[in-house]
Amino acid sequence: MLHCTRILNGRNLNLLGQREPGIHGRPALAEIEAMCRAAGERLGLEIECRQSNSEGQLVSWVQEIPGEFAGLMLNAGAYSHPSIALLDALRALKEPLIEVHLSNIYQRETFRQHSYVSLAAKGVICGFGPRGYLMALDALAALLNDAS
Amino acid sequence: MLHCTRILNGRNLNLLGQREPGIHGRPALAEIEAMCRAAGERLGLEIECRQSNSEGQLVSWVQEIPGEFAGLMLNAGAYSHPSIALLDALRALKEPLIEVHLSNIYQRETFRQHSYVSLAAKGVICGFGPRGYLMALDALAALLNDAS
Amino acid sequence: MLHCTRILNGRNLNLLGQREPGIHGRPALAEIEAMCRAAGERLGLEIECRQSNSEGQLVSWVQEIPGEFAGLMLNAGAYSHPSIALLDALRALKEPLIEVHLSNIYQRETFRQHSYVSLAAKGVICGFGPRGYLMALDALAALLNDAS
Amino acid sequence: MLHCTRILNGRNLNLLGQREPGIHGRPALAEIEAMCRAAGERLGLEIECRQSNSEGQLVSWVQEIPGEFAGLMLNAGAYSHPSIALLDALRALKEPLIEVHLSNIYQRETFRQHSYVSLAAKGVICGFGPRGYLMALDALAALLNDAS
Amino acid sequence: MLHCTRILNGRNLNLLGQREPGIHGRPALAEIEAMCRAAGERLGLEIECRQSNSEGQLVSWVQEIPGEFAGLMLNAGAYSHPSIALLDALRALKEPLIEVHLSNIYQRETFRQHSYVSLAAKGVICGFGPRGYLMALDALAALLNDAS
Amino acid sequence: MLHCTRILNGRNLNLLGQREPGIHGRPALAEIEAMCRAAGERLGLEIECRQSNSEGQLVSWVQEIPGEFAGLMLNAGAYSHPSIALLDALRALKEPLIEVHLSNIYQRETFRQHSYVSLAAKGVICGFGPRGYLMALDALAALLNDAS
Amino acid sequence: MLHCTRILNGRNLNLLGQREPGIHGRPALAEIEAMCRAAGERLGLEIECRQSNSEGQLVSWVQEIPGEFAGLMLNAGAYSHPSIALLDALRALKEPLIEVHLSNIYQRETFRQHSYVSLAAKGVICGFGPRGYLMALDALAALLNDAS
Amino acid sequence: MLHCTRILNGRNLNLLGQREPGIHGRPALAEIEAMCRAAGERLGLEIECRQSNSEGQLVSWVQEIPGEFAGLMLNAGAYSHPSIALLDALRALKEPLIEVHLSNIYQRETFRQHSYVSLAAKGVICGFGPRGYLMALDALAALLNDAS
Amino acid sequence: MLHCTRILNGRNLNLLGQREPGIHGRPALAEIEAMCRAAGERLGLEIECRQSNSEGQLVSWVQEIPGEFAGLMLNAGAYSHPSIALLDALRALKEPLIEVHLSNIYQRETFRQHSYVSLAAKGVICGFGPRGYLMALDALAALLNDAS
Amino acid sequence: MLHCTRILNGRNLNLLGQREPGIHGRPALAEIEAMCRAAGERLGLEIECRQSNSEGQLVSWVQEIPGEFAGLMLNAGAYSHPSIALLDALRALKEPLIEVHLSNIYQRETFRQHSYVSLAAKGVICGFGPRGYLMALDALAALLNDAS
Amino acid sequence: MLHCTRILNGRNLNLLGQREPGIHGRPALAEIEAMCRAAGERLGLEIECRQSNSEGQLVSWVQEIPGEFAGLMLNAGAYSHPSIALLDALRALKEPLIEVHLSNIYQRETFRQHSYVSLAAKGVICGFGPRGYLMALDALAALLNDAS
Amino acid sequence: MLHCTRILNGRNLNLLGQREPGIHGRPALAEIEAMCRAAGERLGLEIECRQSNSEGQLVSWVQEIPGEFAGLMLNAGAYSHPSIALLDALRALKEPLIEVHLSNIYQRETFRQHSYVSLAAKGVICGFGPRGYLMALDALAALLNDAS
Repeated sequence: MLHCTRILNGRNLNLLGQREPGIHGRPALAEIEAMCRAAGERLGLEIECRQSNSEGQLVSWVQEIPGEFAGLMLNAGAYSHPSIALLDALRALKEPLIEVHLSNIYQRETFRQHSYVSLAAKGVICGFGPRGYLMALDALAALLNDAS
Repeated sequence: MLHCTRILNGRNLNLLGQREPGIHGRPALAEIEAMCRAAGERLGLEIECRQSNSEGQLVSWVQEIPGEFAGLMLNAGAYSHPSIALLDALRALKEPLIEVHLSNIYQRETFRQHSYVSLAAKGVICGFGPRGYLMALDALAALLNDAS
Repeated sequence: MLHCTRILNGRNLNLLGQREPGIHGRPALAEIEAMCRAAGERLGLEIECRQSNSEGQLVSWVQEIPGEFAGLMLNAGAYSHPSIALLDALRALKEPLIEVHLSNIYQRETFRQHSYVSLAAKGVICGFGPRGYLMALDALAALLNDAS
Repeated sequence: MLHCTRILNGRNLNLLGQREPGIHGRPALAEIEAMCRAAGERLGLEIECRQSNSEGQLVSWVQEIPGEFAGLMLNAGAYSHPSIALLDALRALKEPLIEVHLSNIYQRETFRQHSYVSLAAKGVICGFGPRGYLMALDALAALLNDAS
Repeated sequence: MLHCTRILNGRNLNLLGQREPGIHGRPALAEIEAMCRAAGERLGLEIECRQSNSEGQLVSWVQEIPGEFAGLMLNAGAYSHPSIALLDALRALKEPLIEVHLSNIYQRETFRQHSYVSLAAKGVICGFGPRGYLMALDALAALLNDAS
Repeated sequence: MLHCTRILNGRNLNLLGQREPGIHGRPALAEIEAMCRAAGERLGLEIECRQSNSEGQLVSWVQEIPGEFAGLMLNAGAYSHPSIALLDALRALKEPLIEVHLSNIYQRETFRQHSYVSLAAKGVICGFGPRGYLMALDALAALLNDAS
Repeated sequence: MLHCTRILNGRNLNLLGQREPGIHGRPALAEIEAMCRAAGERLGLEIECRQSNSEGQLVSWVQEIPGEFAGLMLNAGAYSHPSIALLDALRALKEPLIEVHLSNIYQRETFRQHSYVSLAAKGVICGFGPRGYLMALDALAALLNDAS
Repeated sequence: MLHCTRILNGRNLNLLGQREPGIHGRPALAEIEAMCRAAGERLGLEIECRQSNSEGQLVSWVQEIPGEFAGLMLNAGAYSHPSIALLDALRALKEPLIEVHLSNIYQRETFRQHSYVSLAAKGVICGFGPRGYLMALDALAALLNDAS
Repeated sequence: MLHCTRILNGRNLNLLGQREPGIHGRPALAEIEAMCRAAGERLGLEIECRQSNSEGQLVSWVQEIPGEFAGLMLNAGAYSHPSIALLDALRALKEPLIEVHLSNIYQRETFRQHSYVSLAAKGVICGFGPRGYLMALDALAALLNDAS
Repeated sequence: MLHCTRILNGRNLNLLGQREPGIHGRPALAEIEAMCRAAGERLGLEIECRQSNSEGQLVSWVQEIPGEFAGLMLNAGAYSHPSIALLDALRALKEPLIEVHLSNIYQRETFRQHSYVSLAAKGVICGFGPRGYLMALDALAALLNDAS
Repeated sequence: MLHCTRILNGRNLNLLGQREPGIHGRPALAEIEAMCRAAGERLGLEIECRQSNSEGQLVSWVQEIPGEFAGLMLNAGAYSHPSIALLDALRALKEPLIEVHLSNIYQRETFRQHSYVSLAAKGVICGFGPRGYLMALDALAALLNDAS
Repeated sequence: MLHCTRILNGRNLNLLGQREPGIHGRPALAEIEAMCRAAGERLGLEIECRQSNSEGQLVSWVQEIPGEFAGLMLNAGAYSHPSIALLDALRALKEPLIEVHLSNIYQRETFRQHSYVSLAAKGVICGFGPRGYLMALDALAALLNDAS
C-alpha cells in the first residue's frame, strides 16, 4: 500500500543554500525535495512537497491533510515559534506529524527555542541538516506500517 | 433602516465541527452563518459573512468596513492572541466591534488568555458556543439602534 | 416551568451611577435589577437579586445555590480578580454560572484583566454595560431550556 | 549610476491619513511615495514602492531584493514586532536595510518597543513622520555611494 | 491540665463532602469536628471549633486566642493564599499554630502553592485528608506538654 | 466651619501595642484616637474613628463618606496591599484621602511595598508611628482650608 | 501483618545535631532512627533506615521499593529542591510516600520553598523537628491499614 | 537648643515651577527654602539648604552630616530611584533622615515607584507638594526633641 | 572500519517498561540495547551501552570518550534539565553527540523543556520511543562516514 | 533667522576613534563636531557642542536650553539607559530634541536597548555612525522651519 | 604550627588542559596541585588535594573538615551553580572557606553567574587561572595566622 | 622596570572605618592606600591612589589610563552595580583591570550581586577586606611580569 505523505516547508526555506552560512545545510530546497521523493519510493511513500512564505497558506495545506494524506512532515521555519494558528490546524489532525528543523534550534536565539509545532508533533528531529528530512520519512514510514 | 454588518471568522473556523470535541460547539460554520443571517433578518441587519485563514486577508476585510458596514463581529480565532496588525486595523474603525469566542478562552492555555482584539472591542462574549454569535448580533443591533 | 435564578453583585456595584464616569453604564443598580426582573418574567426565570460589599457574604450566597436556584449570574466587581475563595465556592456548583462585567475589563488596568470567576464560568460577557445583564439572562434561559 | 531601491510598507500603512490622529503623520501613502520618488530622482535612486497587508507577501518581496535592488527601506508597521519570518528574510540580504517608523515607537505600548527588523537593519529612524522616509533615502544614497 | 485549643476552618470548608470529588476527603465538617473533640478528650485538649466564610471573622477569632486558648489549628482554605491580614493576626500570637490542609496543595494550581499562613506556623501538615486534623492535634498536645 | 473627618483603621490595628515590638509604635489604638480627637479640636476638624477587621465593612464606611464627611484618613493595614475593592471605593470619592502607615512599609517584606490605597490617595505618610496620624490631620486641615 | 517501610534521609542529615542551631532539631540521626524503629514496633511497621549524600544512591534506593517495601518516608534534605531525577523515581512508585522536613521550609530561603518531592508525595509534614518522623510513621501505618 | 538641619534637593528641583504642570507644586525652590527657614525658626531648627544636579555632590553633602547636623531632609528627585551610592551614604548616618517627594510617586511611572532612599529613611512623606517640606520639618523637630 | 560508539542512559532508564504508562515506550532497557547492538552490526558501529543513576558516573563516562569512542548517543533522562556538569563534560568532546529522548519533552512539564545536553549536541531526536535510538545510530553512522 | 542649537555628547564620546573597533564610527569627536558646524552653516543653524563625562553636567546643560537654544541634539551614550534624571530634565523642555546613537543599539547588549532619552525625544536616529549627526541636524532644521 | 588545608576540585577539573581553549588556564590539575603543595610548604600549610566528579563525594569531603582541617579551598566547577546540598554542607563549617574559579564566571553564560558556594565563602577569587589557587592559599594562611 | 598602577576607589570609600560595622574592614582608606604603596615598592609597582564620589570623575580617571599607567585596580563601590558608563570606559582599556570589593557582595542585597565592572575585569577578588587590595596588587604585578 502506498501512503500519501505531505512535506510542508515554511518561510524562507525556498532560499535554502543562500542564507547565513554555517547555520543551515547547503543543498537547495529542490534537491532536498528530490532526495525525499527518492526515499519515498524506497519506503512506499508517495511524497508531495509544498513551500510557502504565507502562514495562511500553510494552515490551509494542513487543513487538507485529512482524507488526502496519511501523514505530514513539517518544517515551519520561522513560523514554528509564534504561530498559534498553525498549532490549531495541526491539533485538528489525527494523522501523524513529524517536526523537522535543519539546525539545532536549541543553540540559537532564545526566541527560536519554543515551537508551537512541537506541541502537536509526534516527534521532533533537529540539527541534522537535510538528512533530518530522510530520518523523518523513515520514521513516518515505520509509524504508518505500525498502524496499518 | 437596514444596517450592513460584517461577520469575520479567522483561522481554522472553516473546520468547525471537525476539531477537538468538547472545546468548540458542533455546528459547521455554514450553519452558524445561516443562523446569523436568519437572526439578522429579524433584527434589521443585513449580514455578510467571510472566513479566511490569512491574517492579511482579515486585515484587508477590516479595512473595508468604513463607509460599507455599520458594525463588525469578529471571531479571530488563533489570530486574536498574537496579531498586532489586526489590532491596528480594528483601532482605525469608528464602527462598533464585538469580539466573540466559541469557547471560554480564559479556561484554556495561557497563550490564549490575552487577545489583542479585546483592546479594540466594544464588548466581548465568550464561552457560549454558536449562541454567542446570536448574542453578539442582538447586542450589535441594540447598539446601532441606540446610536441612530 | 419557572427557573429560579440568582443575580449577585459584588463590591461597589451599590454605587452604580455615582462612580467614575465613562467606565460604567449610568443606571443605578436598582434600575438594572428591575430590568432583570422584567426580562425574567418574559423568559420564565424567577429572579432574585443580592448585592454585598463582603466577600464572605458573596461566598455564602453562592453556597446556597444548590437545591434553591437553577443558575447564577455573577458580577463580582473588584472581587473577580483576587478571590480564590469565590472560585472555590463557584467550582462546587453544578448549576450554570454566567460572569458579567459592565466595562470591558481587558482595556483597564493589568490587575483587572485576570478573573478567578472566569475559571468557573460557563461564559463571560463584558463591555456592554447594563445590557450585558439582559444578554446573560437570555443566555441563561436558553441554557436551562436546552438542559430541561 | 542609478541604484534601484525598494520601499516596502507593511500592514495598515495603506490607511495612512485615516488612522488615530496625533500618532502618524497625515499625508496619504501615495503622497509619501511620490515624495520618495521625487527625492530618488535627485539622489540618483530609482524607487519602487510596494505595500501589503500580508506578512507572506512582504517576505517574498524581501526575497526578491538580491540581484534586483541595491538597497531596501522598510516600514513593516505592526509586523515589525512579532515577525521572525521577516527577520529571517532580512538577514539573508547583503544589501543595506534601513528601518523607518513614522511615530516614535519607544513612546507607545510596550509590545511596540521591540522590533525584529532592528536586528537586521543597518540603521533605524523613527518619530519623524513622513520626513523619516526622505531621511532614510538620503542615508541609503550615501551608503550606496560610499560602497561604490 | 486541660489545654484549650481552637480549631478554625476558613471558606468553603462548611461544604466538605459536597465539593469536587477526589480532591478533599469525604466526611462532612461536623464529623471531622466530632473526631477532633474525641481526640482532644484523649489528649487532654479542650477543643473549640469555628468555621467562617469571612476573612474578617477569622482574623477576629485569631485575635481572641491570647489569654483564652493554648494553641491554634488553622485550615484557612482559600484564604491561606492571599490573606496578609491573617498573617498579621497570626504573627501577633505567641501560642503555637499548626497549619493543616486536607489536600496536598503543592500538587494543585500554582496560586495555591504559596500560603501566608505557613509564614507564621510552627508546622505544616497537608495531603492527609481529615486524618491531618488528628495528626495536628497530636502534635499540638505534644508541643504543649513539652512547654508545660 | 467644622469639617467632619473620618479616620478608618483596618485589620489588626485594634491590637496596637500588642504586636511585634519594634515595628509599630506602642500606644494602643484608643490612645491614638484620643490624640486625634484632641488635635481635631485644635484644627477645627470633627473626628470620627472606626476600626474593622472586615474588608467589606471598610468598603461600606468609605462609601458613606460623600455628603457626610469632608475628608478621610485611612490606615488600611494589611488590606492596603491586596484590596482592589478598597481602591474602587476610594476612587469613587471626591473628598481628599490621606494614607497613613505606622511603620515604613518600604523597609518591610516585598508584599507590603505595594499599596492599592496609594493609587487613590492625595498623599502618603509612613514610618512616623502614631505621630503620622497627627501629621495627616494637620495636612487634611490645611487641604480643606485651601479648598474652602 | 508487618509492613516493611523504608526511611530515606538525604544529604547532610548525617550531620544532624551539628548544623546551624535553631533550624533543625537537635537529636542525632541515629537517635531519630532509633525512635522510628521503636515506633515501628508499636505500629506494626518493620523499619529500614538509610542515609546518603549521593543523589544517585537515593534514586537507586527509591527504585528498590516496589516488591520490597510497603511504603516510603523521605526527607531528601537539600535534594528536595532541584532533583527531577528523584521526582521521576518517586513517580514510578505505587507505594505511599510521605515527605518530611525537620524545619518549616516555607519560612526559609526562596530556593527551599519548592520541593519536587511534594509533586509525588501523598502528604507533607514539615516544621515539627524529629517528631515529624513519628507523625509520618503514624500516618503511614494508618494509610497501610486503610488499604489492607 | 538649636538643631542644625540640612535640606538637600536633587536633580531638576532647581527648575521647580517650570516643569510639567499638574505634577509638582508651583512655588520656586527659593520660595520653598524660605518657607522652610521660617518654619525652622519657629521649631528651633537652624536650616541649611542645598541643591545639586550631581549625584556625587549629593553623596558628599550627605557624608558631611555627622558632627555637623542633627538631621537630614532629602528630596533626591530622580536620584531616589537608581542611586545605590546615595543609599550607602545615607545608611552610614545615625542622624534621622526624612524623605520627601512633592508628587505622589506611587501614581507615576513604574520606574519611579521604588526609592533607595526609602530603605534608609525614618519616614516618607509624599504627594503634599511644598507643604510636605514643612510636615517633614515638624516631624524632624519632634524626633529631635524626643531624642534630646 | 568499525566505529566504537557509546550509548549512555541516565537516571531511571533502568526502569523502562515499569514507569508511567503512555509516556515512555514499553520495551525494557535491555531490549533496546539489544536492538541497538543489532543495528550497530548492520551499520558498522561497535556499540557499548551504559546506564547509571549517578550524575557523577555519567560525567566520568563522558570524559572517557576521547581516544576510546568515535561518537556518543546520550539519553540523560532527568539529568538533561539541571546538569551543568554534564554540559561541561560534553562540551569538552570533539566527537559527535546525539541527544535522544523517548518522549516528546516539549509536551511535558515546563521544567523538562530545557535541556543542557541540547547546548552541546549535534542533533536532537525526541518523541519516537525506542525507535529514536535506532534513528540516532543511523545518523551517527552517517556522520562518521561523512567525516571519514 | 539663525537657530541656536546645542549638541550634547555624553560619557566616553570624547574617546571616539579609540574604542572597540567595529561598533562606533571612526572619526574623532572633534571631527564630527566640525562636520556639524559646517552643516549648521549650510542649514542656518548656529551650533554649540559640549561633551561631558558627568551626568550632572549634562543635566545642567539641558536645563540651560530654554531661552538660549532653539533645539537639542543629544547622544547621551551610556547615560541613555539608566538616567531618569536626564529624562526629567529633557521632559521639561519645549524645544525639539533629537536622539542620536552612532551604533544600532538594538543589536547590542540587552541593557542598551532601553533609552530613557527616547521617552522625551521627538525622533530617534541610530546606527548611521557620524552621518547620523548630520541627519539629525537636517531634521532639526526642517522641524524649526516648520514651526517658524 | 602547621595548618592542614583541604583543596577540593569539582567536576571536569580532572580534564584541565583539555577543555575549551581560552576559558581555563592550561596547566593540568596535577601541576596545579603540585604548585599548591609547594606554596603550602612555604606558608606553613599542609595541603591535601581531592577531585571528584560526584556531588555526593564533594559533600562528604566537606563534612570531614571539622576536627581534621583548618580551612578549605573549593573550586566546585559546574556544581557551584545548582548545588544546594553543597551549600548546606559548607554552611555547617566553622573553618574558613575560600571559593576559587579559574575563569571570570561573571563574563560567561547567565547560568554560571550565581554560585551557591559564594553564599558560604569568606571570600571569592575568580579569573586569575591557576594563579588564583596560590592567591587563595596566601589568603588562607593569613586568615589562619590572624585567628591563631 | 617600574610599572605605574592606578588604584581607584568609588563612592563612600572615603568613609571607610565609619560605616556599618561588620560589613567592611576597619582601617581607614588612607591606611589602606599606605599599605598599597608599601606593597607596590616591594613589587616594583609605582602606585597612584584616587578616590571620588563622582561617577563622572571615575570615568575620566579611567580614560587617562592608556599611555600613563600599566594597569588598574578598581573598587567602584556602589557604582559597580548600575554604571554602564564605567563599563564603557573600562572596555576601552587594553591594560589589565582587577576588580576588588572589601565585602563578599554575593552575600549582600540582590542589587549588589551584579557588577558591570566584572564584565570588563581580568579577575575579581571580594570578601577579604583590605587584604584584597594587596592580593590584587600581587596579581597585577604577576600579570605585568608575565606580559613583559
